[in-house]
Amino acid sequence: MTTTKKDVQFINISETEGGESSTDGEKEENGKSKKNGDIKTQESSEKTDAQILLAATLVLDAKRGRNINFKTEEKFVRSYLFYHSWYLRWGLYAFITLDLSLAFIEKPAVSFEAPYWATILLEILCLVFFVFRFCHAAYVEQTSSFWKDTKHLIVLGTIILTVLDIICYIIWSQVAPDTNPVRWSRPLRPLFIINFSDGKQVRRAFRNIRRTVPEIMNVLILFFLSVLLFALLALKLFSKRSSLEYPNGDPYFKNYWDCIWDLYVLVTTANNPDVMMPAYDYSNWFALFFIAYVIVCLYIFMSIVLAAIYNNYKKNLKNEIRTSVYSKRRKLNRAFEILKDKVGSQYVITQETWNRLMKKILPTKSQQQLDLLLRILDSDGDNVLKKTQFINLSDLLHVELTEVTDRQTFLEHKIPSIYNHKVSKAIRWLVRTRGFRWSFDFLIFVNAFFIAFDLDDADMFFLIFFSLEILLKLYTFGPKGFITRFWNVFDVLVIGSAVLASIVEISIGASSEEFRTLDVLLVLRVMRLIKLFGSIQRFKVIIMTIVNIGPSILTYGGVIFVFYYFYAIIGMEVFGNKIHFYGYNGTDLDPLKKHCGNPKLENSNFYNNHYCNNNFNNILKAFVVLFELTVVNQWHVLSSGFVIVTHKAARVYFFCFHLTCVVIVLNIFTAFILEAFILEYSLQKQPRLESVVEAKIKELGLGIGLKPVTPVKPKNDTIELVENEEEPDGISNEPEDDSDTESIPDLSLEQGLRFHLKKRSRKKVEVLLHQMFEGEIDAEDEGPENEDYEPRKRRLTLETV
Amino acid sequence: MTTTKKDVQFINISETEGGESSTDGEKEENGKSKKNGDIKTQESSEKTDAQILLAATLVLDAKRGRNINFKTEEKFVRSYLFYHSWYLRWGLYAFITLDLSLAFIEKPAVSFEAPYWATILLEILCLVFFVFRFCHAAYVEQTSSFWKDTKHLIVLGTIILTVLDIICYIIWSQVAPDTNPVRWSRPLRPLFIINFSDGKQVRRAFRNIRRTVPEIMNVLILFFLSVLLFALLALKLFSKRSSLEYPNGDPYFKNYWDCIWDLYVLVTTANNPDVMMPAYDYSNWFALFFIAYVIVCLYIFMSIVLAAIYNNYKKNLKNEIRTSVYSKRRKLNRAFEILKDKVGSQYVITQETWNRLMKKILPTKSQQQLDLLLRILDSDGDNVLKKTQFINLSDLLHVELTEVTDRQTFLEHKIPSIYNHKVSKAIRWLVRTRGFRWSFDFLIFVNAFFIAFDLDDADMFFLIFFSLEILLKLYTFGPKGFITRFWNVFDVLVIGSAVLASIVEISIGASSEEFRTLDVLLVLRVMRLIKLFGSIQRFKVIIMTIVNIGPSILTYGGVIFVFYYFYAIIGMEVFGNKIHFYGYNGTDLDPLKKHCGNPKLENSNFYNNHYCNNNFNNILKAFVVLFELTVVNQWHVLSSGFVIVTHKAARVYFFCFHLTCVVIVLNIFTAFILEAFILEYSLQKQPRLESVVEAKIKELGLGIGLKPVTPVKPKNDTIELVENEEEPDGISNEPEDDSDTESIPDLSLEQGLRFHLKKRSRKKVEVLLHQMFEGEIDAEDEGPENEDYEPRKRRLTLETV
Repeated sequence: MTTTKKDVQFINISETEGGESSTDGEKEENGKSKKNGDIKTQESSEKTDAQILLAATLVLDAKRGRNINFKTEEKFVRSYLFYHSWYLRWGLYAFITLDLSLAFIEKPAVSFEAPYWATILLEILCLVFFVFRFCHAAYVEQTSSFWKDTKHLIVLGTIILTVLDIICYIIWSQVAPDTNPVRWSRPLRPLFIINFSDGKQVRRAFRNIRRTVPEIMNVLILFFLSVLLFALLALKLFSKRSSLEYPNGDPYFKNYWDCIWDLYVLVTTANNPDVMMPAYDYSNWFALFFIAYVIVCLYIFMSIVLAAIYNNYKKNLKNEIRTSVYSKRRKLNRAFEILKDKVGSQYVITQETWNRLMKKILPTKSQQQLDLLLRILDSDGDNVLKKTQFINLSDLLHVELTEVTDRQTFLEHKIPSIYNHKVSKAIRWLVRTRGFRWSFDFLIFVNAFFIAFDLDDADMFFLIFFSLEILLKLYTFGPKGFITRFWNVFDVLVIGSAVLASIVEISIGASSEEFRTLDVLLVLRVMRLIKLFGSIQRFKVIIMTIVNIGPSILTYGGVIFVFYYFYAIIGMEVFGNKIHFYGYNGTDLDPLKKHCGNPKLENSNFYNNHYCNNNFNNILKAFVVLFELTVVNQWHVLSSGFVIVTHKAARVYFFCFHLTCVVIVLNIFTAFILEAFILEYSLQKQPRLESVVEAKIKELGLGIGLKPVTPVKPKNDTIELVENEEEPDGISNEPEDDSDTESIPDLSLEQGLRFHLKKRSRKKVEVLLHQMFEGEIDAEDEGPENEDYEPRKRRLTLETV
Repeated sequence: MTTTKKDVQFINISETEGGESSTDGEKEENGKSKKNGDIKTQESSEKTDAQILLAATLVLDAKRGRNINFKTEEKFVRSYLFYHSWYLRWGLYAFITLDLSLAFIEKPAVSFEAPYWATILLEILCLVFFVFRFCHAAYVEQTSSFWKDTKHLIVLGTIILTVLDIICYIIWSQVAPDTNPVRWSRPLRPLFIINFSDGKQVRRAFRNIRRTVPEIMNVLILFFLSVLLFALLALKLFSKRSSLEYPNGDPYFKNYWDCIWDLYVLVTTANNPDVMMPAYDYSNWFALFFIAYVIVCLYIFMSIVLAAIYNNYKKNLKNEIRTSVYSKRRKLNRAFEILKDKVGSQYVITQETWNRLMKKILPTKSQQQLDLLLRILDSDGDNVLKKTQFINLSDLLHVELTEVTDRQTFLEHKIPSIYNHKVSKAIRWLVRTRGFRWSFDFLIFVNAFFIAFDLDDADMFFLIFFSLEILLKLYTFGPKGFITRFWNVFDVLVIGSAVLASIVEISIGASSEEFRTLDVLLVLRVMRLIKLFGSIQRFKVIIMTIVNIGPSILTYGGVIFVFYYFYAIIGMEVFGNKIHFYGYNGTDLDPLKKHCGNPKLENSNFYNNHYCNNNFNNILKAFVVLFELTVVNQWHVLSSGFVIVTHKAARVYFFCFHLTCVVIVLNIFTAFILEAFILEYSLQKQPRLESVVEAKIKELGLGIGLKPVTPVKPKNDTIELVENEEEPDGISNEPEDDSDTESIPDLSLEQGLRFHLKKRSRKKVEVLLHQMFEGEIDAEDEGPENEDYEPRKRRLTLETV
């Protein structure tokens, strides 16, 4: 069915950034502040505005998963709301971005190098904002908890260090500008990303790393011991055999440090089998040494490192879920305590209090919408909310509610006579058929085939056909119906750019090399093949898993970025401008540009492998080098180049990078994907996993659809369920496309309220785990008092291990 | 405390190969044969010998985890016992080894090449034994189940194919000996390892692979699709830019197949960053293409492959545990049904039947030992066994029971006056002190330091000291007490060989290069440092995990061997003698030996990297090449060498090897280590996990020790518990060494029966899981009737996902 939204309103107008699932296992507000809330709870039925505001703030915090233990007086609450206002938050993001982007224009710059005072002025600007933000946080948060929070201390420390560094630098560059003054605080900049209160996901990932490191330290120590031991063996075996050397004449296991280095590199497999070949050529039996080493240190120890990391990750994840569920509960309970009135023998929230609360939380919603929300929470229909009903509020706020007003397409509205003509109807029917989609899918396939065999002449033909497809779909579904589907937007972008590229190409006339890149746009169309596979049931789970874990992968992207930035800045200071890329046509270069501008590189593997473009001469190039180091292969050759132009101690830099980014961060990333995938699989089997609110909405929605006699329902409005916003184009009535949606009556009415429930398979694993754990615990359960929650000991069974 | 065993008897004399934990999830005997057993159960109290024999065989099968559905008539049962006799089984192993070893002397041989008729005669000899074994199995097993068993069919098929191949080969080599006749059935030989009934562990690993492959196929298909898609993009991006080429002049992404190959190699990281450099040098933005590709195909897809494999592995493991526990239960129940007598209102096994049964199972045990065993099973002390008591029999049979007779050391016995002298006592006290061990541990450390800094002169000093340590320990603990500790044996071997090596070196006089290898023995002493770390609690879990999973790692060694053998034989047929290793001193070689004996290799990366010794000229070299391919790095260079000397289609060989051995087998290995490690960790936390039998033995053992008045106990004998046989040397009274043993009274009596219970941390994970699942299910529970057991649906909780 085709639907059009007149006005997509977000539930929480003060929070416009969309549905980031916010759970944070941070420090829970302590008992003291809870008591604070209790004191305010009076028996009087009339609540002050301040109380309502406080309760609304608590509810919002519960919804967003925020954990700041703010002061409860009205002025602090207002200030707290201001602290979280979208412009201050986006301002913070902007300033952090600015601060980090300074690396582009600082020496060594990517293209334009700003004078040093300009970058320092910009940095001071950022610091001023950070100090303001910091003071604001200190103002609204309880003083005791504020100064106990590591993140605040780190931010403060970083600010102070940066200021000191700026002063040092200015003095240094005035006194001795020729000694190449160093801005040593720059690697600390990413700490702002981690530690400013809004980088929750990234902070959580870092917390995970911090908690995991001590646990795997034991494994790593044993691992390094065995490397040392094998290095000793290697030294004894090979050092005295003078005939052994590497093909390029380098010494072969001649001193202990080189042994350790070569064997450490072997664990990363990067120098296999080269490191073995001289000994193997000498005597075949030496192969046994290397095979034993690889089996012990690579296959066994590295797997155990992964196992230790994965085990910890799992444990931490579950603890975070528990902590954040309990934290949400406590906040809602505090809000309830503030709002409750005694009616009869029990404490409830009256409809009047409800309306006042919701006016604060959702100021743009109409009264009838608020009534509807109340009705969903109020499972027993007595128009007041008990505590067990009220705690579902934060789930309810996550469900989007919109008003539906218009279902006609734009053309149907404007030129109904033509649009509803028989021919037009036939076309629209045709476009909606399965055959239409299949034939164009087949065309994509043929297109892919043509590209693979380099038959470029047909390009124009395909372009026309695909443009036609877009126009037909646009005609049939209307612009609004059209653009809500991801693949349609994708098509428009790809085909549109391709058409544009073709026009430019024809007008310029030549198939010049610069425009080759535009051909890629044509190739991108082939990505629509993925859609084909996505509709096959067996691939659906995998693709949905990848899509679901997408946002969390971005979190790890953030983590990696922090490390990259840190290492890139250091790398630029240490290795910057030591190696240049001037091409490799040795003869026609002037002597200064030979060997990548550094004569020491002559005959090195680094130069012979043409790696000169891998240098630290600006931050982008540094990022590429670090990415190559992350992929590990040939990292010893890369590091050897920088060792040659500096000193052997440079190996420490590469070793540390490998240890942090590959051994720890990449393994945590693998652990994350493992767990996400396995959870997706297990939760697929769970028959019902939806929150109380969702169940209630479905029940009500269906009830209204079938029998429109309901007490609260306003005159013309209807509640409508939208299980899933994607895909209802020509395909949606085929069963294989949404096999996991329940049957919902087709309400083709003109107006109504519309809930946007997420399809279960579209939910993030974390949300599902939250719902699962909430279903497990008692409605009254607020969790244990102490912060480190230890789940109660259960008997292990075969299922649980 | 020091103990000496007079006579270490194994419980089951017919099974001498030690405590292989035998669980096998194979086909369960079906209902029909069970009924068969029931029919034989008469109400008569007198059992025939045939019945006792049948019951004993069932008990033995339950203990060993065997699953052959044999015929129950007496002659078949006897034949079945003969089928499992140790000489037939070892004969089988010997013939399989012989069959596989033929590769050493077949063309291309390692050193001695036997004439083809000799190898064929030997192979026929093996086949004759295999046919005999096959027919024997067919004779004893129920015909219906025999022919349904895939493993029998595969064995039969392999035998037939081998015979056909032999005939073909003989004809071929008579008719056209110059056309290089091929023995094409040789890669099938490892099938005998997998499919002959005793290679249980390996077969299970293969079953795991077989079950996992369909599940990950979906992921792999999507993965290959994205590789194809990216290859298309790469083709479009790079093929037309004529200036792009590899440093050695090779074409850069010029045709689709090469694009696919290069990008597939990139997923294995082997050609990173070389594959990117030409494009990156051309324009820095092309790096984005490769980064996107690596992130999608390597980090995401490969992690998902691991996740899918791990998920399956876990599921399969639990299913196997369930199946094998139920299968054991059913066997013991059948045995009980055969042996039961009606006493009073219930069916039990009388003491007389028990004695007759145990005489069959443990023919060498004395009557008092059998009485003791009965007493342990008979938890209510009425001298008859109920069904629930009888099913613990197989656990009991796994506990070793020996008679203790002598506790004195050899010297104490021979020269008591000197041995018990004051000085001698002081020395013995000294050796037992903590300081003694610590000082020698410190010496090891110093030794390691000396070796690292190449101070060889002190070698003699260390050698003398370490020899002294051994002699002192030998004196104190006596030979028998000494050799039961692993590290002592290790010391004797290492130091002994080092002493021998030194003597040889001194007598020959020169420090000639041939004897350098002996130095390694001195270095091996440093491995004792591991012992040092093993005694620190924090490393204990990790080291115990590695030790516990050791045997299972060997299983995967077997799996890898099967694949290696298969690919090695094919490789030898295809690539054998195409590449030779003659050294690289280009100028002083005769022309035929230049470029590894193959002029096509001139200027190839393969030759330039000095990889010529990596060839398929005999099976050992082939194994080394395959190991290098398993480690993955530079595998594209290795394969490029063989592609140059043969044909591009050779890439298929290397691709298949990578897919099977690296993507599938290595990931399953990783999954195994992950699961083993995580289970060890979780089970460590489980407070009690021991079988009913172990609990009963502990209870009885303690009871007897404290208060020697027990009804069954014979005159002079005492039951004694040995929790763990290792470590009771000078160190054992220190608490940190066995913090997880319960306190057991020190019975310093001269004679008694001794149970050897395994310390919990020494048990294999699988055994612990078995015990856990047995504790979970009801004593009467024999599992569901159908073979594919689906665990009952439970509500998922945060703990279980």
